[in-house]
Amino acid sequence: MPKSFTEDQVIDRIEDMRRRRPRFEDVHITMSHGAGGKASRQLVEGLIVPLLTNPTLEALGDAAVLDVDGLGLAITTDAFVVSPLRFPGGSIGELAVNGTVNDLAVMGARPLALSAALILEEGLDVEVLRAEVQAMADAAARAGVAIVTGDTKVVERGKADGMYVATTGVGRIAPGVRLGPDRVRVGDRVLVSGTIGDHGVAIMLARGQLDLEADVRSDTRELWSLVSGLLAACGDGLHCLRDATRGGVATVLNEIAMASQLGVVVAEDRLPVRPSVAGAGEILGIDPLYVANEGKFVAFVAPEVAEQAVATLRALPGGEDAALIGEVRVEPPARVLGRTTFGGHRMIDVLVGDPLPRIC
Amino acid sequence: MPKSFTEDQVIDRIEDMRRRRPRFEDVHITMSHGAGGKASRQLVEGLIVPLLTNPTLEALGDAAVLDVDGLGLAITTDAFVVSPLRFPGGSIGELAVNGTVNDLAVMGARPLALSAALILEEGLDVEVLRAEVQAMADAAARAGVAIVTGDTKVVERGKADGMYVATTGVGRIAPGVRLGPDRVRVGDRVLVSGTIGDHGVAIMLARGQLDLEADVRSDTRELWSLVSGLLAACGDGLHCLRDATRGGVATVLNEIAMASQLGVVVAEDRLPVRPSVAGAGEILGIDPLYVANEGKFVAFVAPEVAEQAVATLRALPGGEDAALIGEVRVEPPARVLGRTTFGGHRMIDVLVGDPLPRIC
Repeated sequence: MPKSFTEDQVIDRIEDMRRRRPRFEDVHITMSHGAGGKASRQLVEGLIVPLLTNPTLEALGDAAVLDVDGLGLAITTDAFVVSPLRFPGGSIGELAVNGTVNDLAVMGARPLALSAALILEEGLDVEVLRAEVQAMADAAARAGVAIVTGDTKVVERGKADGMYVATTGVGRIAPGVRLGPDRVRVGDRVLVSGTIGDHGVAIMLARGQLDLEADVRSDTRELWSLVSGLLAACGDGLHCLRDATRGGVATVLNEIAMASQLGVVVAEDRLPVRPSVAGAGEILGIDPLYVANEGKFVAFVAPEVAEQAVATLRALPGGEDAALIGEVRVEPPARVLGRTTFGGHRMIDVLVGDPLPRIC
Repeated sequence: MPKSFTEDQVIDRIEDMRRRRPRFEDVHITMSHGAGGKASRQLVEGLIVPLLTNPTLEALGDAAVLDVDGLGLAITTDAFVVSPLRFPGGSIGELAVNGTVNDLAVMGARPLALSAALILEEGLDVEVLRAEVQAMADAAARAGVAIVTGDTKVVERGKADGMYVATTGVGRIAPGVRLGPDRVRVGDRVLVSGTIGDHGVAIMLARGQLDLEADVRSDTRELWSLVSGLLAACGDGLHCLRDATRGGVATVLNEIAMASQLGVVVAEDRLPVRPSVAGAGEILGIDPLYVANEGKFVAFVAPEVAEQAVATLRALPGGEDAALIGEVRVEPPARVLGRTTFGGHRMIDVLVGDPLPRIC
């Protein structure tokens, strides 16, 4: 269990570290660099972004935003290397489409078109491929978007674990919609669109390496229908959205806190966690706050629309378990504090290390 | 050496086969499915496209074309799995950017933005990664485009051969520009933008598995500068462009012949081939017409602008070896005929099998 700190103690810790630009000093790539936490951030911000330097990339949103003659376009890309390819509640093809649609959705962008690049392993059973392409088609149809272009490569037996998928999405941002951490204000309420940790725990269990059985299914689903409902209900009161994938809700909250230089205080007893996920997490020693989701976002909304936002989400399929979980304060700047059930506080830092590789 | 046939004999061969929609009946994925020839076409058109059915995808261009409120957007994606990662004349990062820029360029689209998804192997030397990200940045700068978003995943040691890269490009098609096989007309001249076969032969030699040394470098380069010159010089007389990557010039010519249901007759003695490539090809038993290029396109232009087109290309960097290589005729419908130096003809079919895996 995490230790409890007073708020002041928490604020004083690792102050310097958080303000520095991440440096990348590793010599070899490790699994941690792909886990979505600190090591990933160091790789991306310390090595890749400085080399590719351009202002759009440096914004480091879930999707890049372009203005083309007044037309707001969002572009996002993701590689999917999840293992196993199929798991309770979904599969790599469904994940690839939903993940990309969701990165557009949280920028407030309606998906216009998707592309898919498949890297297939020699010897892959064609029925496995067929099932995944069908899963992609079905997921795209549910999100109201088409896969308009693609590419297929084959690598030798033993590589690529059956298949990897890279999807890219192009979306359109409605005029006037602008979401981002720079719009987050003190007093904003923080909500999640549903239960947390389902996807990551489902994958861990599906690997069958643990002596544990539990009925946990991935939450993979498209989020555009929920986001469009929220945009309609909250208007300008919707300030920032992030989908809580690798690194989980804790990492997303930290990213927003760092980008806004404001504090996020989370009421831990309000976090919606399924009992099966909580139970599995306890046995595995994993906090659901750090576990990947594939159909959940975190929203920052103005206080006056917060109740309406939750009510709107709860009335939509996939948003039934939406909950207010916290608020934005001046203190602690650039940090996330958890208020525990017993009145204590703990610092909720970004994910360190790699408890859950190959989760998406 | 290929056998020679009379034109009539060639026309009669495999007529049925060419008109059928490819069927996909394989049970397992093989390297051939990634080689860009017949097996690749069967996989894509026989399995993937029917499942993902939508009109934009079914056009099967180098890039998909979308109309967004009158704005013409092109979207393309490619996965790169080339082995080795570095080779004379280029590397995977450079290839990934140029390949995507070129798929946009041959649709007449100026590149607006690129995305890059990296799949890294655990244990990859960070200096190798740094060099490839730098190569991507440099290639993007040469093409006048930025990499605006990306993703990084890590897979276990032994997978992914160091790194795979999937790039997607979004481009803008100028109003009035429309290129495609449906615009190809009888009498059109066929030209290539330079020497053929350089990339594929360079990769084969770089693998070091052949007891052969020759100074052959990949031709990887961006083609937008050549295409924009050609658009300016030929206007509406530029009918169709394709970049001649996997499967080589022969495969591209076949794709256009099949799509237009017209015949393409190629004067084989006009094909620009470097002596080192021709020599290596002869020893290896490989026809440069079937070898991948990464900086060459095939253009179909109206006869009245053909000379101007070649002159324009030759005056631009990367187009010095541009050449007229053939023309479009009524016969043989949907086929490509090679006119050999000795007055005979051979049927130039699409690539069968997999002489050159992992070429891009």
